[in-house]
Amino acid sequence: MRKYDQGCPIARTLDIIGDRWTIIIVRDLFLGRTKFSEFAANPGLPPKVLSGRLKKLEEEGIVERHVYSEHPLRAEYRLTERGEDLLPVILAIGTWGFRHAFEGEPELAAAAARAVYEAIPEARETLVREGLVDRDS
Amino acid sequence: MRKYDQGCPIARTLDIIGDRWTIIIVRDLFLGRTKFSEFAANPGLPPKVLSGRLKKLEEEGIVERHVYSEHPLRAEYRLTERGEDLLPVILAIGTWGFRHAFEGEPELAAAAARAVYEAIPEARETLVREGLVDRDS
Repeated sequence: MRKYDQGCPIARTLDIIGDRWTIIIVRDLFLGRTKFSEFAANPGLPPKVLSGRLKKLEEEGIVERHVYSEHPLRAEYRLTERGEDLLPVILAIGTWGFRHAFEGEPELAAAAARAVYEAIPEARETLVREGLVDRDS
Repeated sequence: MRKYDQGCPIARTLDIIGDRWTIIIVRDLFLGRTKFSEFAANPGLPPKVLSGRLKKLEEEGIVERHVYSEHPLRAEYRLTERGEDLLPVILAIGTWGFRHAFEGEPELAAAAARAVYEAIPEARETLVREGLVDRDS
Protein backbone atom coordinates (compact mmCIF):
# COMPACT_ATOMS: atom_id res chain seq x y z
CA MET A 1 0.00 0.00 0.00
CA ARG A 2 2.59 2.54 1.07
CA LYS A 3 4.78 3.29 -1.89
CA TYR A 4 7.37 5.77 -0.61
CA ASP A 5 9.14 6.74 2.56
CA GLN A 6 7.07 5.66 5.53
CA GLY A 7 7.81 8.76 7.54
CA CYS A 8 6.90 11.51 5.10
CA PRO A 9 3.46 13.14 5.36
CA ILE A 10 3.58 14.15 1.70
CA ALA A 11 4.41 10.63 0.55
CA ARG A 12 1.61 9.26 2.73
CA THR A 13 -0.92 11.73 1.36
CA LEU A 14 0.13 10.94 -2.20
CA ASP A 15 -0.46 7.27 -1.49
CA ILE A 16 -4.07 8.23 -0.81
CA ILE A 17 -4.85 11.03 -3.26
CA GLY A 18 -1.73 11.25 -5.42
CA ASP A 19 -3.36 10.44 -8.69
CA ARG A 20 -4.55 13.03 -11.17
CA TRP A 21 -8.04 11.61 -11.57
CA THR A 22 -8.48 11.32 -7.83
CA ILE A 23 -7.75 15.00 -7.39
CA ILE A 24 -10.08 15.89 -10.28
CA ILE A 25 -12.85 13.85 -8.59
CA VAL A 26 -12.20 15.58 -5.25
CA ARG A 27 -12.34 18.94 -7.09
CA ASP A 28 -15.70 17.91 -8.60
CA LEU A 29 -17.01 17.03 -5.13
CA PHE A 30 -16.04 20.50 -3.86
CA LEU A 31 -17.80 21.96 -6.90
CA GLY A 32 -20.99 20.25 -5.69
CA ARG A 33 -20.99 17.30 -8.05
CA THR A 34 -22.21 14.08 -6.42
CA LYS A 35 -23.14 11.62 -9.15
CA PHE A 36 -21.11 9.05 -11.02
CA SER A 37 -22.37 10.51 -14.31
CA GLU A 38 -21.17 13.98 -13.30
CA PHE A 39 -17.63 12.75 -12.59
CA ALA A 40 -17.73 10.61 -15.74
CA ALA A 41 -18.34 13.78 -17.77
CA ASN A 42 -14.63 14.62 -17.40
CA PRO A 43 -13.22 14.09 -20.89
CA GLY A 44 -10.84 11.17 -20.96
CA LEU A 45 -11.90 9.56 -17.68
CA PRO A 46 -12.92 5.95 -18.37
CA PRO A 47 -15.84 4.65 -16.22
CA LYS A 48 -13.73 1.76 -15.00
CA VAL A 49 -10.98 4.09 -13.76
CA LEU A 50 -13.62 6.33 -12.17
CA SER A 51 -15.23 3.48 -10.24
CA GLY A 52 -11.80 2.34 -9.04
CA ARG A 53 -10.93 5.82 -7.82
CA LEU A 54 -14.30 6.25 -6.08
CA LYS A 55 -13.91 2.88 -4.38
CA LYS A 56 -10.45 3.82 -3.14
CA LEU A 57 -11.71 7.22 -1.93
CA GLU A 58 -14.48 5.42 -0.04
CA GLU A 59 -12.03 2.91 1.48
CA GLU A 60 -9.80 5.77 2.58
CA GLY A 61 -12.70 7.53 4.28
CA ILE A 62 -12.57 10.56 1.97
CA VAL A 63 -15.99 10.06 0.41
CA GLU A 64 -19.20 8.41 1.56
CA ARG A 65 -21.54 6.68 -0.83
CA HIS A 66 -25.26 7.10 -0.22
CA VAL A 67 -27.72 4.94 -2.08
CA TYR A 68 -30.86 7.00 -2.65
CA SER A 69 -32.70 4.65 -4.97
CA GLU A 70 -32.64 0.85 -5.07
CA HIS A 71 -34.60 0.37 -8.33
CA PRO A 72 -32.86 1.55 -10.36
CA LEU A 73 -29.74 1.64 -8.20
CA ARG A 74 -28.70 5.25 -7.76
CA ALA A 75 -26.01 6.50 -5.44
CA GLU A 76 -24.44 9.82 -4.66
CA TYR A 77 -21.03 10.59 -3.26
CA ARG A 78 -20.21 13.19 -0.63
CA LEU A 79 -17.00 14.26 1.04
CA THR A 80 -16.54 13.14 4.62
CA GLU A 81 -14.98 15.48 7.18
CA ARG A 82 -11.61 13.97 6.33
CA GLY A 83 -12.36 14.69 2.68
CA GLU A 84 -13.52 18.28 3.34
CA ASP A 85 -10.16 18.82 4.97
CA LEU A 86 -8.58 18.50 1.50
CA LEU A 87 -9.90 21.95 0.58
CA PRO A 88 -6.56 23.69 1.32
CA VAL A 89 -4.82 21.25 -1.03
CA ILE A 90 -7.33 21.95 -3.81
CA LEU A 91 -7.11 25.72 -3.21
CA ALA A 92 -3.30 25.68 -3.22
CA ILE A 93 -3.20 23.70 -6.48
CA GLY A 94 -5.80 26.00 -8.04
CA THR A 95 -4.02 29.15 -6.89
CA TRP A 96 -0.77 28.02 -8.46
CA GLY A 97 -2.66 27.22 -11.65
CA PHE A 98 -4.28 30.66 -11.80
CA ARG A 99 -0.88 32.29 -11.28
CA HIS A 100 1.21 30.18 -13.61
CA ALA A 101 -0.90 28.24 -16.08
CA PHE A 102 -3.00 30.92 -17.76
CA GLU A 103 -0.32 33.08 -19.31
CA GLY A 104 -1.86 35.08 -22.13
CA GLU A 105 -5.36 33.86 -21.31
CA PRO A 106 -6.69 36.30 -18.70
CA GLU A 107 -10.28 35.99 -19.91
CA LEU A 108 -10.27 32.22 -19.53
CA ALA A 109 -8.78 32.61 -16.04
CA ALA A 110 -11.39 35.19 -15.08
CA ALA A 111 -14.22 32.94 -16.26
CA ALA A 112 -12.80 30.00 -14.28
CA ALA A 113 -12.35 32.19 -11.19
CA ARG A 114 -15.96 33.39 -11.43
CA ALA A 115 -17.20 29.79 -11.65
CA VAL A 116 -15.16 28.76 -8.60
CA TYR A 117 -16.36 31.87 -6.72
CA GLU A 118 -19.98 30.84 -7.29
CA ALA A 119 -19.46 27.16 -6.49
CA ILE A 120 -17.11 27.19 -3.49
CA PRO A 121 -17.81 29.92 -0.89
CA GLU A 122 -14.67 28.88 1.03
CA ALA A 123 -12.57 29.79 -2.01
CA ARG A 124 -13.81 33.40 -2.24
CA GLU A 125 -11.25 34.93 0.08
CA THR A 126 -8.41 33.33 -1.87
CA LEU A 127 -9.82 34.43 -5.24
CA VAL A 128 -10.23 38.03 -4.07
CA ARG A 129 -6.75 38.08 -2.52
CA GLU A 130 -5.28 36.78 -5.77
CA GLY A 131 -7.00 39.61 -7.65
CA LEU A 132 -8.99 37.14 -9.72
CA VAL A 133 -12.43 38.33 -8.63
CA ASP A 134 -13.64 41.69 -7.31
CA ARG A 135 -15.38 41.29 -3.99
CA ASP A 136 -18.39 43.34 -5.11
CA SER A 137 -18.70 41.96 -8.62
CA MET B 1 -0.30 18.08 -23.58
CA ARG B 2 -3.41 19.27 -21.79
CA LYS B 3 -5.25 16.26 -20.58
CA TYR B 4 -8.38 17.64 -18.93
CA ASP B 5 -10.70 20.61 -19.09
CA GLN B 6 -8.88 23.53 -20.63
CA GLY B 7 -10.42 26.09 -18.32
CA CYS B 8 -9.68 24.57 -14.92
CA PRO B 9 -6.65 25.80 -12.97
CA ILE B 10 -6.46 22.53 -11.04
CA ALA B 11 -6.49 20.44 -14.20
CA ARG B 12 -3.82 22.66 -15.72
CA THR B 13 -1.60 22.40 -12.66
CA LEU B 14 -2.01 18.63 -12.60
CA ASP B 15 -0.89 18.51 -16.23
CA ILE B 16 2.37 20.03 -15.00
CA ILE B 17 2.96 18.50 -11.57
CA GLY B 18 0.17 15.95 -11.19
CA ASP B 19 2.35 12.93 -10.89
CA ARG B 20 3.40 11.40 -7.59
CA TRP B 21 7.08 11.28 -8.35
CA THR B 22 7.09 14.85 -9.59
CA ILE B 23 5.65 16.03 -6.28
CA ILE B 24 8.16 13.91 -4.35
CA ILE B 25 11.00 15.51 -6.38
CA VAL B 26 9.62 19.00 -5.70
CA ARG B 27 9.42 18.07 -2.01
CA ASP B 28 13.07 16.97 -2.13
CA LEU B 29 14.04 20.30 -3.70
CA PHE B 30 12.30 22.19 -0.87
CA LEU B 31 14.18 19.95 1.58
CA GLY B 32 17.43 21.24 0.04
CA ARG B 33 18.28 18.27 -2.14
CA THR B 34 19.79 19.27 -5.49
CA LYS B 35 21.51 16.23 -6.98
CA PHE B 36 20.23 13.45 -9.19
CA SER B 37 21.64 10.89 -6.74
CA GLU B 38 19.73 12.49 -3.88
CA PHE B 39 16.41 12.25 -5.72
CA ALA B 40 17.29 8.75 -6.90
CA ALA B 41 17.59 7.69 -3.25
CA ASN B 42 13.78 7.59 -3.06
CA PRO B 43 12.97 3.89 -2.80
CA GLY B 44 11.16 2.68 -5.89
CA LEU B 45 12.05 5.60 -8.16
CA PRO B 46 13.79 4.24 -11.28
CA PRO B 47 16.55 6.49 -12.70
CA LYS B 48 14.83 6.59 -16.08
CA VAL B 49 11.60 7.86 -14.55
CA LEU B 50 13.56 10.38 -12.50
CA SER B 51 15.37 11.83 -15.51
CA GLY B 52 12.07 12.08 -17.39
CA ARG B 53 10.45 13.95 -14.51
CA LEU B 54 13.41 16.30 -14.12
CA LYS B 55 13.40 17.04 -17.83
CA LYS B 56 9.69 17.84 -17.73
CA LEU B 57 10.16 20.05 -14.64
CA GLU B 58 12.90 21.90 -16.49
CA GLU B 59 10.76 22.30 -19.62
CA GLU B 60 7.93 23.67 -17.50
CA GLY B 61 10.23 26.22 -15.88
CA ILE B 62 9.88 24.73 -12.39
CA VAL B 63 13.52 23.72 -11.98
CA GLU B 64 16.78 24.98 -13.42
CA ARG B 65 19.70 22.68 -14.13
CA HIS B 66 23.17 24.02 -13.39
CA VAL B 67 26.21 22.16 -14.63
CA TYR B 68 28.96 22.67 -12.07
CA SER B 69 31.51 20.18 -13.44
CA GLU B 70 32.13 19.15 -17.02
CA HIS B 71 34.58 16.30 -16.34
CA PRO B 72 32.94 14.35 -14.93
CA LEU B 73 29.58 15.86 -15.86
CA ARG B 74 27.87 16.98 -12.67
CA ALA B 75 24.72 19.03 -12.47
CA GLU B 76 22.50 20.30 -9.74
CA TYR B 77 18.85 21.23 -9.81
CA ARG B 78 17.22 24.22 -8.15
CA LEU B 79 13.68 25.51 -7.99
CA THR B 80 12.93 28.58 -10.08
CA GLU B 81 10.67 31.32 -8.74
CA ARG B 82 7.77 29.56 -10.43
CA GLY B 83 8.86 26.38 -8.65
CA GLU B 84 9.27 28.08 -5.26
CA ASP B 85 5.67 29.19 -5.61
CA LEU B 86 4.67 25.53 -5.21
CA LEU B 87 5.47 25.70 -1.49
CA PRO B 88 1.81 26.26 -0.48
CA VAL B 89 0.86 23.11 -2.43
CA ILE B 90 3.56 21.08 -0.67
CA LEU B 91 2.60 22.51 2.74
CA ALA B 92 -1.11 21.82 2.18
CA ILE B 93 -0.43 18.22 1.16
CA GLY B 94 1.92 17.75 4.11
CA THR B 95 -0.50 19.29 6.58
CA TRP B 96 -3.27 16.94 5.48
CA GLY B 97 -0.85 14.04 5.83
CA PHE B 98 0.14 15.01 9.36
CA ARG B 99 -3.53 15.30 10.33
CA HIS B 100 -4.89 12.21 8.66
CA ALA B 101 -2.16 9.76 7.74
CA PHE B 102 -0.35 9.18 11.04
CA GLU B 103 -3.15 7.75 13.16
CA GLY B 104 -1.59 5.80 16.03
CA GLU B 105 1.92 6.91 15.10
CA PRO B 106 2.44 10.20 16.93
CA GLU B 107 6.17 9.60 17.42
CA LEU B 108 6.76 9.06 13.72
CA ALA B 109 4.76 12.21 12.96
CA ALA B 110 6.75 14.21 15.52
CA ALA B 111 10.05 13.05 14.05
CA ALA B 112 8.91 13.97 10.54
CA ALA B 113 7.67 17.37 11.75
CA ARG B 114 11.00 18.06 13.43
CA ALA B 115 12.88 17.20 10.22
CA VAL B 116 10.66 19.51 8.15
CA TYR B 117 11.04 22.25 10.77
CA GLU B 118 14.82 22.09 10.43
CA ALA B 119 14.86 21.89 6.63
CA ILE B 120 12.15 24.36 5.55
CA PRO B 121 12.00 27.61 7.56
CA GLU B 122 8.86 28.65 5.65
CA ALA B 123 7.07 25.59 7.04
CA ARG B 124 7.68 26.46 10.68
CA GLU B 125 4.61 28.61 11.22
CA THR B 126 2.38 25.86 9.82
CA LEU B 127 4.02 23.16 11.96
CA VAL B 128 3.64 25.21 15.14
CA ARG B 129 0.03 26.11 14.30
CA GLU B 130 -0.74 22.43 13.74
CA GLY B 131 0.70 21.62 17.16
CA LEU B 132 3.36 19.39 15.63
CA VAL B 133 6.35 21.30 16.95
CA ASP B 134 6.79 23.56 19.95
CA ARG B 135 8.11 26.95 18.93
CA ASP B 136 10.82 26.91 21.58
CA SER B 137 11.85 23.30 21.29
